[in-house]
Amino acid sequence: MKLYEAESPNALRVWVFMAEKGIEIPRVPVDLFKGGNLAEDYVAKNPMGRVPVLELDDGSYLSESVAICRYLEGLQPEPNLFGHDALEMAQIEMWNRRAEINFFGNVAMAFRNLTGIFKDRETCVPEWGKVAAEEARSKLGVFEARLGESAYLAGDRFTIADITLAVAIRFAERVQGMGNFDVELARPHIERWLGAVTTRPSFVDR
Amino acid sequence: MKLYEAESPNALRVWVFMAEKGIEIPRVPVDLFKGGNLAEDYVAKNPMGRVPVLELDDGSYLSESVAICRYLEGLQPEPNLFGHDALEMAQIEMWNRRAEINFFGNVAMAFRNLTGIFKDRETCVPEWGKVAAEEARSKLGVFEARLGESAYLAGDRFTIADITLAVAIRFAERVQGMGNFDVELARPHIERWLGAVTTRPSFVDR
Repeated sequence: MKLYEAESPNALRVWVFMAEKGIEIPRVPVDLFKGGNLAEDYVAKNPMGRVPVLELDDGSYLSESVAICRYLEGLQPEPNLFGHDALEMAQIEMWNRRAEINFFGNVAMAFRNLTGIFKDRETCVPEWGKVAAEEARSKLGVFEARLGESAYLAGDRFTIADITLAVAIRFAERVQGMGNFDVELARPHIERWLGAVTTRPSFVDR
Repeated sequence: MKLYEAESPNALRVWVFMAEKGIEIPRVPVDLFKGGNLAEDYVAKNPMGRVPVLELDDGSYLSESVAICRYLEGLQPEPNLFGHDALEMAQIEMWNRRAEINFFGNVAMAFRNLTGIFKDRETCVPEWGKVAAEEARSKLGVFEARLGESAYLAGDRFTIADITLAVAIRFAERVQGMGNFDVELARPHIERWLGAVTTRPSFVDR
């Protein structure tokens, strides 16, 4: 297998997931700023032009970070990060999706529209960036409340949902202040949980 | 169990999924236009204020359509709609997410921002609605190409990925023309596939 990747939050999700599993796969860098993800040979691997992409040994390709992680979970089930039974799998999926849709997605839209980082290839609407940042700030309150009553996002143990939210918060920390982006990251329960998550060996030095 | 729902595309995804499985669950309507999904007792069920929500027999709640469907797949594995092995599960998840993120999500943002249907509770940015509609129109080409070479979205059989894309296209059909929304739905391979999907008993009369 081979992983096509870049310094992006979605690639980080897969790196951390693999580190938790102890999986090592050769990596091929893709230069997003030079449009490497939009080149013909890359779009043949992933028609959506996003990183990361996993090349399988039969020459086929998988994309979408969570789909890649789910495949790796199947190859190497322990430590379990997606849930053991139907209910736990659903609870983890619910929190993973909430973290993706209600926080991560809004942070990404806010960042791109407020800073215009990819304005060479997409239309930026700063007014929408402000709406997305406010939505991210508002919904972060749901995660703060959850982490006030639960050790980890989906329950009492670390799962892929924690990887998604922690990566999204790390991303928000990096872009905080750029283009007036501010989602008020400093919240006590999130800080306690983020300390526990990002001091795991899988996160350190990434 | 009990399903809190409304006339929404996400509720339709769960209805079709349950119909495929032959699962029947009592339904509780939520009035989105009167803000029933934002009322205190509803937000206690789903802090994100979205439909649908599944109430379990122990009084706990699951939300996020795909998490609900994954739970139901666990309760009743056949007919299988999420995949049998690690690779098929990952391929289905990849296509389901592409349909959600690259098409459905953009259609929903275009609709809300172009029509201002929920402007009593959210800031609408028509310029962003145009960007989202163009992105949906552009990415629909990826699905058209895929369905030119594959009977169904994730391969040679019907899966949850087909439910997601078909529901999103049905939604786009309904809002086509509203607020100048136009994503050029008429494409030959999509029409062939959509005919096969929406004449299934699970889709008819919904």
